[in-house]
Amino acid sequence: MRSLSALLSQERNWLDASGPDSDTVLSTRVRLARNLEAFPFTTRARDDELEAVMQRVAGAAQKVDLLHAAPFFRIPELSAMDRAFLVERHLASRDLVGDSRPRGIVVGPGEGLTMMINEEDHVRMQGILSGFQLEEAWHLVNRVDDDLDGLLEFAFSEDLGFLTSCPTNVGTGMRASVLVHLPSLVLTKKIRKVLSGATEVGLAVRGFYGEGTDVMGNFFQISNQVTLGEDEKKTLQSLERVARQILGYEEKARETLVSTARVQIEDKIYRALGAMQSARVISSQEVLGLISAVRFGISLGLPGMPGLTVLNRILVTSQPAHLQVLASRDMERAERNVYRAEYIRRLLAAESGAGGTDHA
Amino acid sequence: MRSLSALLSQERNWLDASGPDSDTVLSTRVRLARNLEAFPFTTRARDDELEAVMQRVAGAAQKVDLLHAAPFFRIPELSAMDRAFLVERHLASRDLVGDSRPRGIVVGPGEGLTMMINEEDHVRMQGILSGFQLEEAWHLVNRVDDDLDGLLEFAFSEDLGFLTSCPTNVGTGMRASVLVHLPSLVLTKKIRKVLSGATEVGLAVRGFYGEGTDVMGNFFQISNQVTLGEDEKKTLQSLERVARQILGYEEKARETLVSTARVQIEDKIYRALGAMQSARVISSQEVLGLISAVRFGISLGLPGMPGLTVLNRILVTSQPAHLQVLASRDMERAERNVYRAEYIRRLLAAESGAGGTDHA
Repeated sequence: MRSLSALLSQERNWLDASGPDSDTVLSTRVRLARNLEAFPFTTRARDDELEAVMQRVAGAAQKVDLLHAAPFFRIPELSAMDRAFLVERHLASRDLVGDSRPRGIVVGPGEGLTMMINEEDHVRMQGILSGFQLEEAWHLVNRVDDDLDGLLEFAFSEDLGFLTSCPTNVGTGMRASVLVHLPSLVLTKKIRKVLSGATEVGLAVRGFYGEGTDVMGNFFQISNQVTLGEDEKKTLQSLERVARQILGYEEKARETLVSTARVQIEDKIYRALGAMQSARVISSQEVLGLISAVRFGISLGLPGMPGLTVLNRILVTSQPAHLQVLASRDMERAERNVYRAEYIRRLLAAESGAGGTDHA
Repeated sequence: MRSLSALLSQERNWLDASGPDSDTVLSTRVRLARNLEAFPFTTRARDDELEAVMQRVAGAAQKVDLLHAAPFFRIPELSAMDRAFLVERHLASRDLVGDSRPRGIVVGPGEGLTMMINEEDHVRMQGILSGFQLEEAWHLVNRVDDDLDGLLEFAFSEDLGFLTSCPTNVGTGMRASVLVHLPSLVLTKKIRKVLSGATEVGLAVRGFYGEGTDVMGNFFQISNQVTLGEDEKKTLQSLERVARQILGYEEKARETLVSTARVQIEDKIYRALGAMQSARVISSQEVLGLISAVRFGISLGLPGMPGLTVLNRILVTSQPAHLQVLASRDMERAERNVYRAEYIRRLLAAESGAGGTDHA
């Protein structure tokens, strides 16, 4: 089994801010839920059945074009730190790593494609791309799905579509989402209205780590709710349309802010950057707020801002498990807060030494 | 009448941090109160009498060795901004510039020596030096006093000494003070005990601008109370002894802090510096707190700190009247807060560009 921390040193992944609209859309994800017809759903299966599912799925994955060289990790063999690492990296869900039943994950190149095995469903394929790329993310997982279709028998009903453990996924089994940064709507207090508009048209709004997680750093995950009686294309189009609308509202709110309180906004942004460059002790909670402010500075085109790439990298890699993987040791919260501050200063200094802003 | 703002561009004055113990003692001041025998005290004199006093004293000042080329300003001719400027600069008291009666001020070279005319007493000579230099400051004003003694008839009683408008100054008419920075005693909450010890042995503890002003930025002005029945030497020795004791307590408290909370202290200090380097809007109140923290960083010998000279300069010149004199225009508070932030960033950037720390 290859080392998880090798993922840390990957040159490029969805955090590289290379995608379209990266200043407001951190990432796009599409996941498909599938189940093997021959086995009970994971919640009802015995461990030996789960083990059999895992072997079949992992074996099939190796035959999939996009995943043939991808490492496979058995969750029960991972330390608590490695499990938390996968969750922080948006690769595994909290459910997947929550206990030690036979579960696993296949991590494709650049982490753009992953496959969770025996999470809520037997198979959950996830495509994640930088920026706003719904169709591209969909194509990615769809290719895998097509390849797997010849290798595994998925539970499928002519009437309903794909059958899933939870009825909310029956049909396409698809959940598409964009992780958007909406600081202006939050600052102008319009966010609640905008988001409730999104839920009215059948979308779900969630926090930084998906279902059941908090909104942090003004990041919102907007995804489809409907999986039944609608084809994937239509679902994606509707999500795309509403997400674009929300980005338009964000831009309008930004213009209002800039015209009414430019200097106060800039003060907040530059102080946030100053704090990131200066702090000797910093919590991950604080980092999220600071990153949000600096990201906003990039959206506004302010001079002297770091690049989105380094910000995204800090966003993910300054989290507790990442820091411990980086340091190759367990650290208590107090020690982490010191290590984190030093790590962030180093990343920012290295970037500004390397020529400063990369978003111009 | 020469321009007040010319004072701004003076290369060296007591803010240059050249004196001994400059990291904890901002400045030493000694002032002597004198009154002309032939005139009533200022509070009881008519305006024409005050005018006569002013002419005599200003005339005599020109004959004093240390003041012969010193500019003389008539307070009633100064704008409100210029008056506030003098107070911010520690040259004039608030009382001196408080109304438009015939009052004046003579400002010696480098502002080390000034003479207020018709403040509470007819003459108040003030020597102010960088760092901890009680004897030197005393010698300065004493030389002026000796010179004036041949030119003016001071009210003097064989029994009591020099007669002054307020009985608390009768005798030597001398008030000697050191402006000390005691952040560790404040942080360890020992300051109250230490300062009440000082008042018990006959010293007074005041804020940044002397009598009746608040403590700001952890700066405390410690001065003698006794002027009657004690000669100047003894007064100075006693102040020196107690001030050294207090500096010793500060150092002990600093050691405690460093050994128990080094990283938290450093965090506070570097964040303060980061805020000064980053802010786009900043109040003078906030600046004092930030300067206090950065000064503490210099005392601790932390790397990357600016020099004391630039900090002292910011301390004084970022105040409201100074900024308006600098900008050559009236500014509302909101505009000042923006101008101040820019000014501080510029001073710090110029210094770090010029080779960084000058205290190493």
